[in-house]
Amino acid sequence: MNVSIIVIGDELLIGQVTDTNSGFLARTMRPAGWTVVDVDVVPDDNSRIRNAVLEALDRADVVLTTGGLGPTKDDITKQALMDVFGGELYRDAEVEANVREVVGKRGIRLNSLTADQALVPTSCSVIQNRLGTAPIMVFSKGTKTLVAMPGVPFETRGMFTTEVFPMLLQRYAPDVALRSDVIQAIDITESDLAIRLSSWEESLPSYMHLAYLPQPGLIRLRLDGSHADRAALDAMMDRCREELITLVGDNLFADKDMTPAACLIELLAARGLKVATAESCTGGSVSAAITSVPGASAVMQGAVVSYSNDVKTGVLGVDPLIIETEGAVSAPVVEQMAAGVARLCGADCAIATSGVAGPGGGTPDKPVGTVWMCVLTPAGSHSWCCRFPGDRARIVDRTVMTTLIRLCMAVKKL
Amino acid sequence: MNVSIIVIGDELLIGQVTDTNSGFLARTMRPAGWTVVDVDVVPDDNSRIRNAVLEALDRADVVLTTGGLGPTKDDITKQALMDVFGGELYRDAEVEANVREVVGKRGIRLNSLTADQALVPTSCSVIQNRLGTAPIMVFSKGTKTLVAMPGVPFETRGMFTTEVFPMLLQRYAPDVALRSDVIQAIDITESDLAIRLSSWEESLPSYMHLAYLPQPGLIRLRLDGSHADRAALDAMMDRCREELITLVGDNLFADKDMTPAACLIELLAARGLKVATAESCTGGSVSAAITSVPGASAVMQGAVVSYSNDVKTGVLGVDPLIIETEGAVSAPVVEQMAAGVARLCGADCAIATSGVAGPGGGTPDKPVGTVWMCVLTPAGSHSWCCRFPGDRARIVDRTVMTTLIRLCMAVKKL
Repeated sequence: MNVSIIVIGDELLIGQVTDTNSGFLARTMRPAGWTVVDVDVVPDDNSRIRNAVLEALDRADVVLTTGGLGPTKDDITKQALMDVFGGELYRDAEVEANVREVVGKRGIRLNSLTADQALVPTSCSVIQNRLGTAPIMVFSKGTKTLVAMPGVPFETRGMFTTEVFPMLLQRYAPDVALRSDVIQAIDITESDLAIRLSSWEESLPSYMHLAYLPQPGLIRLRLDGSHADRAALDAMMDRCREELITLVGDNLFADKDMTPAACLIELLAARGLKVATAESCTGGSVSAAITSVPGASAVMQGAVVSYSNDVKTGVLGVDPLIIETEGAVSAPVVEQMAAGVARLCGADCAIATSGVAGPGGGTPDKPVGTVWMCVLTPAGSHSWCCRFPGDRARIVDRTVMTTLIRLCMAVKKL
Repeated sequence: MNVSIIVIGDELLIGQVTDTNSGFLARTMRPAGWTVVDVDVVPDDNSRIRNAVLEALDRADVVLTTGGLGPTKDDITKQALMDVFGGELYRDAEVEANVREVVGKRGIRLNSLTADQALVPTSCSVIQNRLGTAPIMVFSKGTKTLVAMPGVPFETRGMFTTEVFPMLLQRYAPDVALRSDVIQAIDITESDLAIRLSSWEESLPSYMHLAYLPQPGLIRLRLDGSHADRAALDAMMDRCREELITLVGDNLFADKDMTPAACLIELLAARGLKVATAESCTGGSVSAAITSVPGASAVMQGAVVSYSNDVKTGVLGVDPLIIETEGAVSAPVVEQMAAGVARLCGADCAIATSGVAGPGGGTPDKPVGTVWMCVLTPAGSHSWCCRFPGDRARIVDRTVMTTLIRLCMAVKKL
């Protein structure tokens, strides 16, 4: 199925807002084999919207629009859609009830602009937007469908996943079962992995597809399948997933789709272990990554950001002599930081980081990007050094990912 | 000047990569009064690129393309551009030298695919890409210009700012001086601020424009001006900027464009003060925000993430009785956390946070989003409570912004 996406809004063309909806929609539809053939970003302008819709209907089976439905500017998009699909505005009682309910939950007053969200074209059917006030409008033209959705990512994503896409699948592929499995690989480049998997990948049945999704520090492999027979699909997916896991072998990081931080929390919780971090160059980012996961409090004791050497020695108990002779960015310092924070916070496991995040502070010996890291478990500690490329933010990100992955691997071996 | 942007790449249409280049380009050109009228995202496909280029040339004065120039797929984009502008490929010696230099700096081997980046159409002029291997190609058609740039954001942004946009300004507006000033306002809604500024805004000369750029916790106001006479522009900008600062009055946060974290570092450094943070619900994110700024080490001592109550009492010295009677999310706890971390890390100033970031942990009394915050300076401490809307990540972000802004305001008064 070919899909064309039209992103509507002046705020996108002046660079005030970044469109992340179209990527989300593409990723959601990909496992079903639906392809986004075009994304067109247009201003809140009747003729531009109308032309974009006509071109998109020409090019694709399904057209999705996001945005342009706010209470202050919905007339433009609704009018442009009526210019294409016909109809006239009427006040829909169900939409009005939904608008009142959504506004009521937010504890704000319903003004006349928002109340007018209940005006919808007679030429569309409505999907009630439980997450916002702008109704989702479904238009048809021959075998083609256009769905007009709000632009607020929270609303678009929630409603597309739970209602819009299921409706479209029902309309265009009523008998297709879908499944997507993810596994994650580490310590291998994308091209080396692709070479290892190539002959297996070629042997996959035509209704299955492997996607490489590399990110800093790991590669996510997503196996997508779609088949008329749910049982046959599940049997084949189970078999191929096992084969893939075997082929990835020692490079396997996780056999499902979760962040390294979430993996770590699950692994620690299963073993009743607690964790703490001692951070210099990462400045608290490892701790922030762990605590960004709901439920982190079950395993996370705390962290010390020892940005100054005083805090390294005074709070974490690092030997000042070692800092003087080896430097703050060194193996013994991260070892002592990890041990110190575990002791201080009453944790069984720890991560420690000390590096040169730049742009200043580099030396010929320890250039910008040099980072010493340590992971500590009840089985012992391990420290190592990397030289990460990129700027300050990228060096910190890579350090966070690397240390979380390494601690996961160490905890798995316990 | 009307600008159309074409974003080229399969990876964008499958949602693997989010296009942030077009927003950057729009924001960069906006102060000169250049308007992006359309962003079209197309796949690596000759006919689709060619059609997009023809439509864009029809619609705009200047067309910018990003992406589609990687060593494995450059033929498609280059060929599509030659289909429109004519010419044939030749090996350019200067481009070849640049490719060798860039590859050499990265310490990798030059393979034949990358070497072929030196093949460019005879119909374009080249801007050497100092930041990557794909040459930047400039095509002309009548009074219109198309610039084909690489898609890597680091390369696009660097080269557009330093070379491509100056070249375009020289070509289309050789005698125009530009200036953009930013000031930042807090503790006021965008609509209230707009009402206060409306009559002043209407009185601005036609060559000046005020843009509202709201973000969580503050509103950036950008005053853009363009004029043939640099001295006249500077005089009028100086005057209007002063008037704007006066009108914003007590709501002024900063008279220039810098993040709250960078503001805080500048304010503390100027006074020779040191800072530390004690974080519960933010999990290290306040510290990470401060240390994300180069030069943070001049003022940042360290942080304690006291995620467990043991760490609050054992490391920061919070009274266990107070936690029992008042709860961990309370005024006395954040006060004691701030005092504790300042003492422990040898800091003059501190930020402390304790809240319910959700999704679990809320009570009728302290629902999800309830956050107690404290800022401490040599003049004393101040603690207060907010109820932030949104999910876990948004609640943390708002807490980080709010505490950094409040500590800035407190330090300014010292």
